[in-house]
Amino acid sequence: MIINLKQRITLIFLFFITNLATAQNKILVFQSDFGLKDGAVSAMKGVAAGVSPELKIFDLTHEIPAYNIWEAAYRLVQTVPYYPAGTVFVSVVDPGVGTARKSVVLKTKTGQFIVTPDNGTLTLVAQSLGIEEVREINEVKNRRKDSEKSYTFHGRDVYAFTGARLASGAITYDQVGNELPKQVVEIPYQKATLENGKLKGSIAILDVQFGNIWTDIPAGLVKQLNPQYGDLLHLQIFHKGKKVYEGDAPYSQTFGAVAEGKPLSYLNSLLQLSFALNQANFAAVHHIASGNEWSVEVTLRKGK
Amino acid sequence: MIINLKQRITLIFLFFITNLATAQNKILVFQSDFGLKDGAVSAMKGVAAGVSPELKIFDLTHEIPAYNIWEAAYRLVQTVPYYPAGTVFVSVVDPGVGTARKSVVLKTKTGQFIVTPDNGTLTLVAQSLGIEEVREINEVKNRRKDSEKSYTFHGRDVYAFTGARLASGAITYDQVGNELPKQVVEIPYQKATLENGKLKGSIAILDVQFGNIWTDIPAGLVKQLNPQYGDLLHLQIFHKGKKVYEGDAPYSQTFGAVAEGKPLSYLNSLLQLSFALNQANFAAVHHIASGNEWSVEVTLRKGK
Amino acid sequence: MIINLKQRITLIFLFFITNLATAQNKILVFQSDFGLKDGAVSAMKGVAAGVSPELKIFDLTHEIPAYNIWEAAYRLVQTVPYYPAGTVFVSVVDPGVGTARKSVVLKTKTGQFIVTPDNGTLTLVAQSLGIEEVREINEVKNRRKDSEKSYTFHGRDVYAFTGARLASGAITYDQVGNELPKQVVEIPYQKATLENGKLKGSIAILDVQFGNIWTDIPAGLVKQLNPQYGDLLHLQIFHKGKKVYEGDAPYSQTFGAVAEGKPLSYLNSLLQLSFALNQANFAAVHHIASGNEWSVEVTLRKGK
Repeated sequence: MIINLKQRITLIFLFFITNLATAQNKILVFQSDFGLKDGAVSAMKGVAAGVSPELKIFDLTHEIPAYNIWEAAYRLVQTVPYYPAGTVFVSVVDPGVGTARKSVVLKTKTGQFIVTPDNGTLTLVAQSLGIEEVREINEVKNRRKDSEKSYTFHGRDVYAFTGARLASGAITYDQVGNELPKQVVEIPYQKATLENGKLKGSIAILDVQFGNIWTDIPAGLVKQLNPQYGDLLHLQIFHKGKKVYEGDAPYSQTFGAVAEGKPLSYLNSLLQLSFALNQANFAAVHHIASGNEWSVEVTLRKGK
Repeated sequence: MIINLKQRITLIFLFFITNLATAQNKILVFQSDFGLKDGAVSAMKGVAAGVSPELKIFDLTHEIPAYNIWEAAYRLVQTVPYYPAGTVFVSVVDPGVGTARKSVVLKTKTGQFIVTPDNGTLTLVAQSLGIEEVREINEVKNRRKDSEKSYTFHGRDVYAFTGARLASGAITYDQVGNELPKQVVEIPYQKATLENGKLKGSIAILDVQFGNIWTDIPAGLVKQLNPQYGDLLHLQIFHKGKKVYEGDAPYSQTFGAVAEGKPLSYLNSLLQLSFALNQANFAAVHHIASGNEWSVEVTLRKGK
Repeated sequence: MIINLKQRITLIFLFFITNLATAQNKILVFQSDFGLKDGAVSAMKGVAAGVSPELKIFDLTHEIPAYNIWEAAYRLVQTVPYYPAGTVFVSVVDPGVGTARKSVVLKTKTGQFIVTPDNGTLTLVAQSLGIEEVREINEVKNRRKDSEKSYTFHGRDVYAFTGARLASGAITYDQVGNELPKQVVEIPYQKATLENGKLKGSIAILDVQFGNIWTDIPAGLVKQLNPQYGDLLHLQIFHKGKKVYEGDAPYSQTFGAVAEGKPLSYLNSLLQLSFALNQANFAAVHHIASGNEWSVEVTLRKGK
């Protein structure tokens, strides 16, 4: 083929434009309960790199406790909003691998995509960011070649492969598969309330590295209670309805506002009411864990 | 220098072509027993990034138990085939650092490169993917500048440096060093067999995160035994020849085929016969580990 | 806009030149005490990827023990020199988050940048690589949009954001904020000495994965003592001044120079005097830890 000078230059420009226009769609983020001690996570990334070497590949975490769908859901809502629109997440916490649960790709109203089994993993992201569209993965078309004999590693053969093809632009969102109704499988949980000056909620999760207690009580409810910095919040913690902790924690803007080892209350990085010991581990010291069985009640004591 | 229009455009084209032609060779994957708690792995990547900022750098795992060459070998064979041809792996599990063991780069018949001490790490990859060529690293030429005084961090000063230069195209495979005979140091192990309807093999490794038992019995041998889904496989596990477990495990396509906590048998993601408890930890519950000292015998009980 | 051929080509060339000139400044390396079990590290990277998808993002480690500024300082000096000039490090070990400690960006004399709270984290890098310039982060200008309500995640909202903007070229170093005097907050520690044939130093850190003892005694002092390979070094270890270990360790070029389980002395990958058991864990076997409270004395016994 002979092409003239003008055509050559046009080609070069097209190359740039194409490249730039899709640049922000090439980010791919993995989450799983696989841990990092074997080759499973790396094999998923190898499949992705084989789809397109131009992908920017990140990890959310691979230390989700085995089969813990709630924590997978929480880590997604904690992280997805900080990645740009167009980012593709692949989350593989999949106790039902090989059973009838659907494999889906959710597009949030904020423009991120999440590739996952529809087993509750999408509960919090769907509520927090909104559902733009849900599609079921067509596993006949969107499956790594020669992987038909392996039934137990959907993470590598379907999810990583489909996520990489979507992120790289090898397929459009429509080509993932048929559109489903705008709903996902949800894990039931009690939502936080404020009644008669008492905040009620649950311990959504621990800030595991530091042992801080993160409730599901949002800043909006806290604002209605209206504590000022320095005011004491009175905290009660219940396990299966039985009180296991009671104490006061000054509402603080910084951990350094209280002495080392002393309790404080604050809004965490997700703007939810949280409790901590300054430079110590609240959960370990007081034997507190997280999940549906752990609830809190919080009232305001004026003055110090 | 004055260059005319045509020359300029030719230059631009050459730039693209060079870039594209070597693109798939810029993937570099690290494995070690260093853990991620200090700066050792990051220093290796820094050296690589200094060789070429265009490299795509991945991890296999850095949690190989200290000095465990067998596990290094296993993790390679579990992962290498999922990366595209042209990928360069750097594996540093090196109890003999500074001694006379050779530093080599193996090219597999499937086109991946592995940079490693030749201490048994290549045992399984060589058998599974085949040896295209082996070269000994010329450590005089392929050594990070100013690193002559440090004898104990070959991973950073020789392996990461050489792997990065090879992956980026700074050196060709020939420039690694002299060609060696097509053989590698091998860790001896018993290969799986099928005789008189009895499968014999060893527990190659644990699927550590979940506690599943992965044998070295390949799908080919299982197929000769010919179990149908739902058929019971009778499993005996021996430690140093002494029986430590005996039980039946339905041959299953999915974990969900049995009740929670119940045993099943299946082909794992490497298509080798494996045993698990659905959503529970077989190895922990029954005190099973992996390695040469752990063997299994498996027969077929027809019907459920 | 109509541009002629010459202008087009000039544009293309400018694109290349700009790109190449700043290429080595796009490397961004994260360190923290966050661990990898939740979404905190990933959220920082998401913010960075949102600033520029062209960044090459690496980890130093995220397993710094909670609030351990000394270890953060040590891991930086262990790793920073191996990344090319122009690399930007973001280190978030920040027990005083939200208090009056300054947020700074240090430029080393070797051309790397470190974004961190000025709380002692820069102690060793400043001494080892030298201070080219220090600037205080202007947190009004260099703060993620809409993050004003979150006071506890400076790592994501200020440090990752500023580091990414600096690394990507979105801001110049000058635009970080005002220049400060060329000094940083320093953690006090005893420097190694050689007097009357006796080396004195402290156990700077453990090579945690393997249990090796890394002192702060540099190769230069060891050279003055002048041991030959095979000579015995006599080691005494003190905890709070009380002797807890005494023994001989051949000065060796390789671990393999002594039998398995036997002690040796050597220069580690940072060229500091270290002690180890060949293929065993010195620290675990002899109950040794690291820090200011752990000191060593070393003399030379001629002959084996």
